[in-house]
Amino acid sequence: MDLACLNLRWSLALFDGLVAGGMRRLVLSPGSRSTPLVLAGQRQPELELTPILDERSAAFFALGLARASGRPVGLVCTSGSALAHWFPAVIEASESGIPLILLSADRPPELRGWGANQTIDQTRLFGGFVREFHDPGPAEDSPAALKMMRALGTRAAAVSRGHRPGPVHLNLPFREPLVPASDCVAEPDPRSERFSPSPLRERGWGEGECDQTALTSLLSGRGVICCGPGDWPPAFAPALWACAERLNAPVLCDPLSGLRFGSAPVHRITRYDSLLRNPRTAARLKPDWVLRIGRAPVSKTLLGWLADIPTILIDPGAGWSDPNHDVRLQIAVDPIHLCNRLTCAGLVDPDWLAGWIDSEQRLNQLTADYLAQAPWCEAHLLADLLAALPEGDGLFCANSMPIRQLDTWSGSRASALRVFGNRGASGIDGQTSTLAGLNAGGVPTTALLGDLSFLHDLSGLLLLRDLNRPCIVLNNGGGRIFDYLPQHGLPDFARLWRTPVGIDLKGLIESCGIGYRTVEDGEGFRQALAHSLGETGTGCGVIEVRVDADLSRQIHREFWRQMLD
Amino acid sequence: MDLACLNLRWSLALFDGLVAGGMRRLVLSPGSRSTPLVLAGQRQPELELTPILDERSAAFFALGLARASGRPVGLVCTSGSALAHWFPAVIEASESGIPLILLSADRPPELRGWGANQTIDQTRLFGGFVREFHDPGPAEDSPAALKMMRALGTRAAAVSRGHRPGPVHLNLPFREPLVPASDCVAEPDPRSERFSPSPLRERGWGEGECDQTALTSLLSGRGVICCGPGDWPPAFAPALWACAERLNAPVLCDPLSGLRFGSAPVHRITRYDSLLRNPRTAARLKPDWVLRIGRAPVSKTLLGWLADIPTILIDPGAGWSDPNHDVRLQIAVDPIHLCNRLTCAGLVDPDWLAGWIDSEQRLNQLTADYLAQAPWCEAHLLADLLAALPEGDGLFCANSMPIRQLDTWSGSRASALRVFGNRGASGIDGQTSTLAGLNAGGVPTTALLGDLSFLHDLSGLLLLRDLNRPCIVLNNGGGRIFDYLPQHGLPDFARLWRTPVGIDLKGLIESCGIGYRTVEDGEGFRQALAHSLGETGTGCGVIEVRVDADLSRQIHREFWRQMLD
Repeated sequence: MDLACLNLRWSLALFDGLVAGGMRRLVLSPGSRSTPLVLAGQRQPELELTPILDERSAAFFALGLARASGRPVGLVCTSGSALAHWFPAVIEASESGIPLILLSADRPPELRGWGANQTIDQTRLFGGFVREFHDPGPAEDSPAALKMMRALGTRAAAVSRGHRPGPVHLNLPFREPLVPASDCVAEPDPRSERFSPSPLRERGWGEGECDQTALTSLLSGRGVICCGPGDWPPAFAPALWACAERLNAPVLCDPLSGLRFGSAPVHRITRYDSLLRNPRTAARLKPDWVLRIGRAPVSKTLLGWLADIPTILIDPGAGWSDPNHDVRLQIAVDPIHLCNRLTCAGLVDPDWLAGWIDSEQRLNQLTADYLAQAPWCEAHLLADLLAALPEGDGLFCANSMPIRQLDTWSGSRASALRVFGNRGASGIDGQTSTLAGLNAGGVPTTALLGDLSFLHDLSGLLLLRDLNRPCIVLNNGGGRIFDYLPQHGLPDFARLWRTPVGIDLKGLIESCGIGYRTVEDGEGFRQALAHSLGETGTGCGVIEVRVDADLSRQIHREFWRQMLD
Repeated sequence: MDLACLNLRWSLALFDGLVAGGMRRLVLSPGSRSTPLVLAGQRQPELELTPILDERSAAFFALGLARASGRPVGLVCTSGSALAHWFPAVIEASESGIPLILLSADRPPELRGWGANQTIDQTRLFGGFVREFHDPGPAEDSPAALKMMRALGTRAAAVSRGHRPGPVHLNLPFREPLVPASDCVAEPDPRSERFSPSPLRERGWGEGECDQTALTSLLSGRGVICCGPGDWPPAFAPALWACAERLNAPVLCDPLSGLRFGSAPVHRITRYDSLLRNPRTAARLKPDWVLRIGRAPVSKTLLGWLADIPTILIDPGAGWSDPNHDVRLQIAVDPIHLCNRLTCAGLVDPDWLAGWIDSEQRLNQLTADYLAQAPWCEAHLLADLLAALPEGDGLFCANSMPIRQLDTWSGSRASALRVFGNRGASGIDGQTSTLAGLNAGGVPTTALLGDLSFLHDLSGLLLLRDLNRPCIVLNNGGGRIFDYLPQHGLPDFARLWRTPVGIDLKGLIESCGIGYRTVEDGEGFRQALAHSLGETGTGCGVIEVRVDADLSRQIHREFWRQMLD
């Protein structure tokens, strides 16, 4: 496609999202680099355009417009020092909480910092005076990229008028040419190629208002609730289960949602990561809407399956966990409050929930049968661990393999368990120190770590002398998650990705005066665990579980293969 | 003193430095909070003041002034969004390399972020578009504080016209009242209380130009060269020694200067930390000027003694290592280049250098005599170590006690040794990992660490399997530097400051397959060292030296007490 047409389409997608978010006015100062934005603004009938020569004056004018209308107002300028003239008005908007959408055109990355004309470093130019800053990069020609731009527009508008209203800065680099050739104009109006407005928008959603009745009317048809990682208060689970019953919706419970363990109605679904690996099942269970609560789920299978499903995101922390760019409406509200008010108004498919419950139950049986005949591996260990941990205990799960294995194999249990994981940045770091902190914080917490995450935080070893529960190290000789990823098989794979450390854990741990046990099978693990759970302090110690990584991988692969049947 | 007078004096000190740095014009926009700056500007006869209502216009006007004159031009505005109007001109100045001094008045810290009127977060408002940002805090009434303000002015002017010219932003908070009472005006003109202009300035120095002849004419009388930590190229030492001979100046060599070990003339002084503990010696050896090269020295005794001595700072990296605020002139030039050109033009005190050499030699003897009868401690260990390390080897010294003990006891030696230390931030962190990197980088390097710095970087332990030299751990049971500091004796001192870890180093180290030796006296240390130096890889290993911290402290204290006689 002609690059100028692409720039235009890119800008149209952005304005589509901004208009959906309530923007109706655009104040622009003249310039060349901003041409795609002006062309798109002209083609957006819901937008009124006002040109003002001086950017400083334009910004204060936009501030007045936004104050008077209560709606976000867009500003467009060209690259270079132009946007710096907005700064005084941006400061006033930040301090007064006025929604401004700052759309600065920019040169593409390859020209920045290399002395190109009218090119300065525009990134984060307004520092802490804007609520969010985004630079989506130059225009790209893919449905996913255009979808992202629309989502970015919706998001910018929502944030600008959110709980802490104020300016939002989008820096938009454009490659030349900027003006479409005549044949491009002869093409069908780019607007007709935009995504069809989402059902949410058709029903008047996306304007940012949070009208409970309208939201309820929207939640008709086949829906799922997806609850991601989050430290929810105890009152959340009962409110959620009651809401799920009213909405006739299954609740897909992330291993870090805290919902897998404890009493729950049949709506609780925990086997989705395995279930959805079967394309027929995945298609059959596809919903019309998803109500997502908290952060994005751990399961990549689930996240991939959710793509393109209209999403309502509930996050009391006003986060935008939306890597698929499907969120049409983000509601920054206490989920207990929302759950208590949601009811299902529309028609309900009577087989919808039953299909989910049936799938979950059949998978429970299938998993049990499979593991009964499979050699001992992490799946059996998890079953023993979940059977043994006292009610109300904590389980701290490292990233990489342990959390994914918990996701696949945990299922549910009737007595409560608090599951912790450092999923904010999902790093390998600080695992043993965090474990010590959790125990010192009053929750007797068992850890499930890999050998690399254990060794990465060696300084934390010094803190493990005061635990109330064991630290379980799954030693499979390095970063075995890479065995499941495309890096597997690259030259020098073991040294550069798997990076086994080859340290005698026993000597290391005992030299710090910490109890140590090593096991290689189920019987040994159950004994060591029972022993550890009866101790405190250095007695809890470390249980090193020697895992045959290749065998384990074979067991996982065969199980997933059976899912495809 | 009246707070308004203090604000005025504070501003006068700043302008004194700025004028010394070549600033002659001040462009101001009206406001209340900036009143002390305007009053000071009025009292500074060398400054021409131009009021311009609009800050944006004022900034572009100043830009033009600076372009035309080649001198730094000052801008003054009040607090709030006022300074944001400067931004477009600041960007132009940054991109074009024009020296602007941005003097924004601000509310004091206690009013920021609490909703006070016309108060925004002004810190780092111009992001990466200014060369430096400083916020010296509200005015204070002490000679040291006023000296700092003068130094800040000199520095800001120098940086604005330095190797990478551009704007410098000083954010200046003022507490009310801002207008001095009438009796304050009746007081002697605050200008008369300013520091007398430095000799450097009297001779036309401080204008930022680097005229070799004028610099040489300045270096008359009694001077010292002080060479701080730095990774100097091999050609530096010969150039420096030749320069010292021409200038008739002793060279005070920091342990991390690389100058203590290797051939040198008698000008090399290494015992200053002990020498200058005697007030009479310190007074007798006081110089008229100091030529400082590189970072500030490790020795606090030396740094304190240098306070208020006019200083020329040579730093090829254009740093401002000037915690005493005595630098009158900073020259960002290769020190070899400078040393080769410097000659002494003025009168020379014939006894000056001889006094230093005599002191150093007497202290060499005194130290040897003292250690001959003292119980074995780190001082003896250092002597053995320096006698044993091969020519051209590296010695990596941890912060806290080891580098200070090296400073006190090393003396000099004729064969070269590269001394390394992480003094950039002088942290306790990353010592064993750095050591592994130094060895892998091709310099066979022995380390001298304390037990805490060793344990702080436990992950680095895994890297110690590939060393070419031993890692010596001085285990004195925790952070013993605090035993020398005022924290000593506070409640719960050992647990909260000294923080001994109580780990069996032997088990820990051997569990990683690393060689381990422990010693408690000179004979044992010499044997272990000889053994280690004959090995590579895991064989070099760790030598744990058990140190009796209380006895060691007693030996140090008694030695310093003798210095007072």
